[in-house]
Amino acid sequence: MRPATRFLRNTPSILSAAAIGGKKEGDGPLGECFDKINDDAYMSTETFEKGESQLQKQAVRHLLDKSGLTASDIDIIFGGDLLNQCVGTTFGIRDFELPFLGIYAACSTMSEGLALASVFVDGGYSDRSIAVTSSHFCTAERQYRFPLNYGGQRAPTSQWTATAGGAVIVAKKEKPPYIRAVTVGRIVDLGVTDANNMGAAMAPAAYDTLSRFFKDTGKSPDFFDAVVTGDLGKIGSRLLCELFERDNINIRDNHKDCGMMLYDFDVQDVHAGASGCGCAASVLCGHFIPKLKSGEIENILFAATGALMSPTVNQQGESIPGISHAVWISHNDCESVPDIKF
Amino acid sequence: MRPATRFLRNTPSILSAAAIGGKKEGDGPLGECFDKINDDAYMSTETFEKGESQLQKQAVRHLLDKSGLTASDIDIIFGGDLLNQCVGTTFGIRDFELPFLGIYAACSTMSEGLALASVFVDGGYSDRSIAVTSSHFCTAERQYRFPLNYGGQRAPTSQWTATAGGAVIVAKKEKPPYIRAVTVGRIVDLGVTDANNMGAAMAPAAYDTLSRFFKDTGKSPDFFDAVVTGDLGKIGSRLLCELFERDNINIRDNHKDCGMMLYDFDVQDVHAGASGCGCAASVLCGHFIPKLKSGEIENILFAATGALMSPTVNQQGESIPGISHAVWISHNDCESVPDIKF
Repeated sequence: MRPATRFLRNTPSILSAAAIGGKKEGDGPLGECFDKINDDAYMSTETFEKGESQLQKQAVRHLLDKSGLTASDIDIIFGGDLLNQCVGTTFGIRDFELPFLGIYAACSTMSEGLALASVFVDGGYSDRSIAVTSSHFCTAERQYRFPLNYGGQRAPTSQWTATAGGAVIVAKKEKPPYIRAVTVGRIVDLGVTDANNMGAAMAPAAYDTLSRFFKDTGKSPDFFDAVVTGDLGKIGSRLLCELFERDNINIRDNHKDCGMMLYDFDVQDVHAGASGCGCAASVLCGHFIPKLKSGEIENILFAATGALMSPTVNQQGESIPGISHAVWISHNDCESVPDIKF
Repeated sequence: MRPATRFLRNTPSILSAAAIGGKKEGDGPLGECFDKINDDAYMSTETFEKGESQLQKQAVRHLLDKSGLTASDIDIIFGGDLLNQCVGTTFGIRDFELPFLGIYAACSTMSEGLALASVFVDGGYSDRSIAVTSSHFCTAERQYRFPLNYGGQRAPTSQWTATAGGAVIVAKKEKPPYIRAVTVGRIVDLGVTDANNMGAAMAPAAYDTLSRFFKDTGKSPDFFDAVVTGDLGKIGSRLLCELFERDNINIRDNHKDCGMMLYDFDVQDVHAGASGCGCAASVLCGHFIPKLKSGEIENILFAATGALMSPTVNQQGESIPGISHAVWISHNDCESVPDIKF
């Protein structure tokens, strides 16, 4: 097996980050972290799908405003989302008229986009690239499970798709935080077929990618202030810790899951936690990046997690494969704290 | 506007390419170019979707066989397709257990995958990467338009989604053909809403990307043996030539469209031509790459074209945006024929 991790020689900077949320996200424990909260699930459009596009448009607009840049300063947008044909992204970013590379990684989209943008900047193929993604409770439920009006009862293992978006600008090394390394994940499929238990479908993929990162780099979980997964929720998080325990690796003390952080379990009735591309993206952009910037925390390993679930083939009896990509983000660049060579 | 084109400093090689087709593709004028023809639309599975996955699996298997490599020699697969959640790719490549970056670019997937694989190899982030894609007439029709059993009459502007797959290995500079430059396309949307006229939706995007390539590089269409678009078909190809005529650029003499090449218009009843990710991919892999390898042709500009069409938002009144990414593939590397600097 070839190493899956690449150290970035020039440690690009995350220049700016923006997080957008819906009402429920604003009411949660991270409510203060969002740049904008939308109280209207339609975001002043006529449909939920058009509403989701607004999340991405708002994320990119806030991102540019915060960084003092305009669209013409950006080389490429890497973006995707959960909607069929990734239309949240297509219609969200269309008006910026920027070169665009569409990606599909289900809820691990933010780490794929961040990894790609980082490699393009690190290698000199871009001066500044954006990674953006979103999810919306109302579009995801009707596409993946049932129309909301159906009023189906939610299973205890089910997670609440976040109505949220997040975006970052990756640019040449300038100021913290820096991207130090990326690990490209593999499709891992242990045969889960329950469309209401995404955490179980994704946990083995997170385990695979994180294990490979630790093996490739020689680092252990306690090197990081937080090993951050995307949206494993209660069940997937427990499974991840158990999988590492088999290898005598304690990830429990440093593991944080965005799906466990976004809502208040006691009052927000989200069953097994939050999910969706927008969950990992908004928690990264609104919560972790500001702390990495200020130096309050020094290193995170960000591994958003995706369930490559298709209602069509799921109904044909196929399982739900998972994938996870990891990005090491640090307050320190490669000169102040060099990498271990591999 | 920042330049959208990147010259590749180390001119990676296309080490190998494979094209897989269905019966109709085998019966067409390029039938001899395919590595494998499937007479059964189900590819010995129970559903068309599972069948489409087989196209990708076959493409990667033939690719590895032809190059004398195994999966463990590959760093990353870049892949995507037209199916919701890109499941043609997910289930097609799952068994190879390779690091995977999912992409979505509708029918321009092959040029996005080729561009990404080339940048990763050129920048030293991968020794060998695969780009793969597919499409299937029976899966695309029922997802985007009507179930086949409905027996709807096809509009004269409609194109026939190719049942085909294609895959390439991009590796460090070794032998021709070489990747010389890539241009990342923008979303271009002139307001076409007719789901049966993809050529018209995509032509402005092809024009935008090709124009930017010519502007960025100082090259003109006649430098290339062929300026190859993906699947504009009869209508889109005519529109593309007309758009360039407004700029006094003659692209007509050197323009080839894969959608015009795959089938025999006189006997195969395909209306405006072929389409689908597999169309551009299989014509590139089966027809153009062998000629670039042998030196029979020296340079092509490959610009697969995608219609970012979503039935959901199309039914909500939204238009069909287009996108196209371009890759310059040459028999010559950067030492034998240097680039013009920009």
